[in-house]
Amino acid sequence: MSVIEQAGKARVAAIELGAATRTVKDAALLLMADRLVERAGDIVAANEVDVRNGRANGLTESVIDRLALTPERVAAMADGLRQMAALPDPVGEVVRGSTLANGLELRQIRVPFGVVGIIYEGRPNVTADAAGICLKSGNAALLRGSSSALSSNAAIVSVLRKAVADAGLPADAVQLLDATTRDSVKELMRARGLVDVLIPRGGASLIRTVVEESTVPVIETGVGNCHVYVDEHADLDKALAVVLNSKTQRLSTCNTAESLLVHAAVAPAFLPRVLEALHGKGVTVHGDAAFAAASADVVAATDDDWGTEYLSADISARVVDSLDDALDHIRVHGSGHTEAIVSESVAATRRFVSRVDAAAVMVNASTRFTDGGEFGFGAEIGISTQKLHARGPMGLPELTSTKYVVTGDGHVRP
Amino acid sequence: MSVIEQAGKARVAAIELGAATRTVKDAALLLMADRLVERAGDIVAANEVDVRNGRANGLTESVIDRLALTPERVAAMADGLRQMAALPDPVGEVVRGSTLANGLELRQIRVPFGVVGIIYEGRPNVTADAAGICLKSGNAALLRGSSSALSSNAAIVSVLRKAVADAGLPADAVQLLDATTRDSVKELMRARGLVDVLIPRGGASLIRTVVEESTVPVIETGVGNCHVYVDEHADLDKALAVVLNSKTQRLSTCNTAESLLVHAAVAPAFLPRVLEALHGKGVTVHGDAAFAAASADVVAATDDDWGTEYLSADISARVVDSLDDALDHIRVHGSGHTEAIVSESVAATRRFVSRVDAAAVMVNASTRFTDGGEFGFGAEIGISTQKLHARGPMGLPELTSTKYVVTGDGHVRP
Repeated sequence: MSVIEQAGKARVAAIELGAATRTVKDAALLLMADRLVERAGDIVAANEVDVRNGRANGLTESVIDRLALTPERVAAMADGLRQMAALPDPVGEVVRGSTLANGLELRQIRVPFGVVGIIYEGRPNVTADAAGICLKSGNAALLRGSSSALSSNAAIVSVLRKAVADAGLPADAVQLLDATTRDSVKELMRARGLVDVLIPRGGASLIRTVVEESTVPVIETGVGNCHVYVDEHADLDKALAVVLNSKTQRLSTCNTAESLLVHAAVAPAFLPRVLEALHGKGVTVHGDAAFAAASADVVAATDDDWGTEYLSADISARVVDSLDDALDHIRVHGSGHTEAIVSESVAATRRFVSRVDAAAVMVNASTRFTDGGEFGFGAEIGISTQKLHARGPMGLPELTSTKYVVTGDGHVRP
Repeated sequence: MSVIEQAGKARVAAIELGAATRTVKDAALLLMADRLVERAGDIVAANEVDVRNGRANGLTESVIDRLALTPERVAAMADGLRQMAALPDPVGEVVRGSTLANGLELRQIRVPFGVVGIIYEGRPNVTADAAGICLKSGNAALLRGSSSALSSNAAIVSVLRKAVADAGLPADAVQLLDATTRDSVKELMRARGLVDVLIPRGGASLIRTVVEESTVPVIETGVGNCHVYVDEHADLDKALAVVLNSKTQRLSTCNTAESLLVHAAVAPAFLPRVLEALHGKGVTVHGDAAFAAASADVVAATDDDWGTEYLSADISARVVDSLDDALDHIRVHGSGHTEAIVSESVAATRRFVSRVDAAAVMVNASTRFTDGGEFGFGAEIGISTQKLHARGPMGLPELTSTKYVVTGDGHVRP
């Protein structure tokens, strides 16, 4: 079946799903969870095919690890769906409302988008996650996973579709697109009018392609060249903790710090401490002249380093003469994801917060906190780095649009 | 100067403008208004050049009328800016906030987009309007008007830039792009990273081009194939009033009704009345067989009529067998702008409201009410017919994004 045909079926399913009550949707989510656990054996068996093919195709062990499923991992997917059932339904929320001077009742009400396309990489747990978050927010999901997870995704989606149908909702609310060809991505990107929004999750090149070529509105996610700026008024103990945690708590996430900026006034005191700590954690520091002078282990930074999202045990580092120099550096090299300042000065943090252009600004806190779970959103489909519609961690409300409902009694415009 | 260079200047200006207080921005708006009035003579003189050229180029008198400025029309532009100064500042509004379990203070704060590009047609008053709404919402504006208003727009923008600078804000917050070439539109559409959002205002073909070709995120505005559905439970007096007002209160706006759907149960009673009234107002009815049977003045509708936004004294008309048939018809032919139902039945209006996919749904009210002014928003940059970011009339808050600000005391993730 073509993507266009599948999208047409999704549109029809979206009408029923959009009008479904929370009770029905939550029952479907719980059934989806139960069935995943019941069918865990089949899913793990299907996954073994992908893992075998992956090894034969030379995938690295870290990629295989993200791909591999165990009964425990399937149970975790089911738990994710159960947690989604417990979250409030965004659909139907009255966002604003008033009675106009002429007596018309104006209500702005949260409604589903309709059909959401999600393009993602190798992890099969994303399949259940994305299906669940779309269903809870009333959207039909078109899932375009990785070819490396072909067999796993087919097994998972087959179980989920059966559960959705058994719960009384249209099975076409959850559909898997052909992952064996790039054509399905191309068709999806041109399905304006059938698909309401496209969310690419994955590497920078996938996201760039979708942004460049899609006529369907896109929510851009994920690339993070995050900075920690240590101000002249920083508490250096806090600064050390924030830098270390931002860089090393997990190396390969989009909210990991990739660049360190230190005010010149605290550089003599802070550089030796932070370098020792980073080196102790196995981090390679790509530093400017001031950093290089502070330790023989510092690698001289090139211009490319400032814009690099390493996703590894590397960090670029530079001494700046002022807070405004730090802001200028971030303006040029930042990716609009998360920027942190460590400072005890109200004036400095006010200026940094108001002038830095990013989805999230951390004041005396690790960049790693930019996360739907940490923010208390319960479920997350990704972290938007664009300014339109959603910015930062996207939970259920970010997967909805609104509709104005205006009620009168034969009102006409004079 | 190239669009890219202008966009670069806009980005720099946007930093200052984004951090400007309401007091400073409102003072700038009031000064812009005063200066427009003071310099009305020069502006009208510049406009006369455009009007003369327009006549020489064979523009129709209705286009000339939209283009022409008088001292009174300049004064109205100034009044628009003064009204904007009186509106609340959306920037800095705390959209949501909480203290997380670990003590982190989470705030989602409204911030300007940064740089907004607006592409519009011949009316020079849009220049002042768009500059004002962007300035109030903290955004630098790149204005790409029509070549037919070249001289008028240059005069207006020159006055506005001087006022902005005299009020202590960067003049580059308001810039006019070259309207003599399509290249400026193309450059604007490819200026991703420099321009945050693009709003095309104008005809369907302009909007389609921008949606297809822009890599800058777009907010789609304006095309309206709006329906009025007269339900079997309608009060036919209200139905008549709503149909007439929706179609004839103003013929050429996007919220004008273009199609009438009547439930078969009330067709015998309603068709003669509505046809007489529409014909009395000079409206040509393009009807199905049932309508054609009711009056010799009805023109037989072709398949093309159902999807046509006439913007003229024409309406398509059809009898449907049920509310669901009306919903199906609207699903196929509607443009997602405004759909109206006339009915006294709670069940019918609930079903229509929840199932129709449009920016605005009118219950017993004219489609003409979908308007920022009517909704009480005070200022409007257009009516969005897309679902991402903004849907329906867009006021000041719709010209902003948000930023998460997270404040801690050296917090790190365990």
